[in-house]
Amino acid sequence: MNLIIEIKLKTLKIAIVGFGVIGRGFVSVLKAKHGFIKKNFDVDLKISAICEVNGSIVDEKGINPDSVLKLDSKRLDRHNNWTSMKSPDIIERIDSGVILEVTPGNIKTGEPGLSHIKTALKNGRHVVTSNKAPIALKFSELKNLAERKNLKLMFEATVGGAIPLINLCRETLHINKIESIHGILNGTSNYVLTKMFEEGVNINSALKEAQELGIAESDPSYDINGIDTGVKIVILANSLMNRNVSFRDVKIKGITDITPEAVDIAKKHNYVIKLIGDAGKLEVSPRLIPVNNPLNVSGPLNAIMLHTDIAKNITVIGHGAGAEETASSLFSDVLYIAKDLH
Amino acid sequence: MNLIIEIKLKTLKIAIVGFGVIGRGFVSVLKAKHGFIKKNFDVDLKISAICEVNGSIVDEKGINPDSVLKLDSKRLDRHNNWTSMKSPDIIERIDSGVILEVTPGNIKTGEPGLSHIKTALKNGRHVVTSNKAPIALKFSELKNLAERKNLKLMFEATVGGAIPLINLCRETLHINKIESIHGILNGTSNYVLTKMFEEGVNINSALKEAQELGIAESDPSYDINGIDTGVKIVILANSLMNRNVSFRDVKIKGITDITPEAVDIAKKHNYVIKLIGDAGKLEVSPRLIPVNNPLNVSGPLNAIMLHTDIAKNITVIGHGAGAEETASSLFSDVLYIAKDLH
Repeated sequence: MNLIIEIKLKTLKIAIVGFGVIGRGFVSVLKAKHGFIKKNFDVDLKISAICEVNGSIVDEKGINPDSVLKLDSKRLDRHNNWTSMKSPDIIERIDSGVILEVTPGNIKTGEPGLSHIKTALKNGRHVVTSNKAPIALKFSELKNLAERKNLKLMFEATVGGAIPLINLCRETLHINKIESIHGILNGTSNYVLTKMFEEGVNINSALKEAQELGIAESDPSYDINGIDTGVKIVILANSLMNRNVSFRDVKIKGITDITPEAVDIAKKHNYVIKLIGDAGKLEVSPRLIPVNNPLNVSGPLNAIMLHTDIAKNITVIGHGAGAEETASSLFSDVLYIAKDLH
Repeated sequence: MNLIIEIKLKTLKIAIVGFGVIGRGFVSVLKAKHGFIKKNFDVDLKISAICEVNGSIVDEKGINPDSVLKLDSKRLDRHNNWTSMKSPDIIERIDSGVILEVTPGNIKTGEPGLSHIKTALKNGRHVVTSNKAPIALKFSELKNLAERKNLKLMFEATVGGAIPLINLCRETLHINKIESIHGILNGTSNYVLTKMFEEGVNINSALKEAQELGIAESDPSYDINGIDTGVKIVILANSLMNRNVSFRDVKIKGITDITPEAVDIAKKHNYVIKLIGDAGKLEVSPRLIPVNNPLNVSGPLNAIMLHTDIAKNITVIGHGAGAEETASSLFSDVLYIAKDLH
């Protein structure tokens, strides 16, 4: 007698809001991993919509990744399924189980991501986002809204790019109280400090090189002034340490005053200067770190140390940015949601 | 109108087999975290039995942790609920959902853990273990047995102590193919190499100090000869890289030949010598690691670098041993099992 076990393949439709580097990275990884996901997680992931500022591609039966990836991001209107419908309507009306919110966020208002996330939750859709601004600004409001609606609000990709951090605490460090979290959360400033340490150059020439290599943006002020790190520690404090803090509560000092001389003196005493975000003390500042400390990572890497009551210190190091790398975290969230589908 | 949501509290009974440092650490953490677990995971964890070589403590209604912790490990027979029943009978006959197998394992035979785990699975009980030997020796047999019975075989604590590694890959790096894993998996040898690097001493005096501090065992040969690391990379290769290899396939070279001169030359060129286990190449050997590499961790820390196709490199650093620290991993497994209870 043969026992035939039928596993029902679930379908999860995803509407992608924003099609910049992150959105494109997600679609590209989905293309590569669609079969793997189907086989290992019994779920057929489909893209039902992709929204950009001026309109959207919509196909509730599933958009072919190739048909989108071959288009210039600014010319999605050349797609056969292009429509002038914009994100709020797409989120409300197009069939999807998850909204992937990957627009760039305005750190003062949280928009347009904040409205996208609220609309998604109000319409019964789970949310996965890489958008720091709305999560940093309105965590408790969004979390409560999601809980009332029995929906998931997932944001692993907002902090540390590819590094598992939020899901790591929820899924593997269950038993632990997270007492504090500190570390390097900004790749640009770490690249600059590494150059200064290794080559003795000043901050301007290190920054220029980072810009030429595409590591730093043309306006890197949020990175080197510590703003970006500050936003991330607000997210970590609120989501992993049961705090209820806002960006205004964070004391921030960036790396613009760091001189080659200061770096050199530190080096002579076996220290490096690193821009450290501390979610326990709510502080971003350059700190002296012993060269043999796990947080002494070089180049654009991120490194985060969790202080817990049972496991003690756990440090996680990895790529804090990159389209594919960040997709690893987005998929971690999407597959967590898929697991509970029936 | 008030909406009353009734959450049903589940009960999960655990039989602990082996009451050395790890078993005691588990009970001590359960004592501290019982309320926390009940509140956050809706499960009442109860210890239904604790087995030692000469007999067991049994109480299917739940053993009070304090009543055990106050006893000398060698004098559990002073407990009111002491019985001469031994582990095979306990595993078969005493009510438990999970067998926590934490005996010391013989690396050649896998016993007594191997028999304990088989008996547990055959009797419909999930298994959580910190015991490397049976998992390294008989992974595919045990895994198949567990799958046939629809049971969980969990072993996060066998590699890297408190460091989330196996559950990290399963629960947060889903989408990734683990292409290789290498790192520092033995605290004793890393402590010794760190002393040699920092103080220029030879291996014997570094080892003597480690023994005095209780970091190294009185017979540290498995540690410094690379055997312990070899066993762990077999577990990683089989469980995370879909390999089917055995300890005989691993090429092993320990650190006994490392001289202070070699350490010093490496240091002058900005390298450290570390004992690296490589689950991709199936090799344990001293390697030159750049001082600014994430694997350059000091003292008894462990550090493991995962090479993946999407997230790229992820490094995890933490305590590779310790009673409480290891309990963090055991509870990660136990709570994973508890989540699926009805």
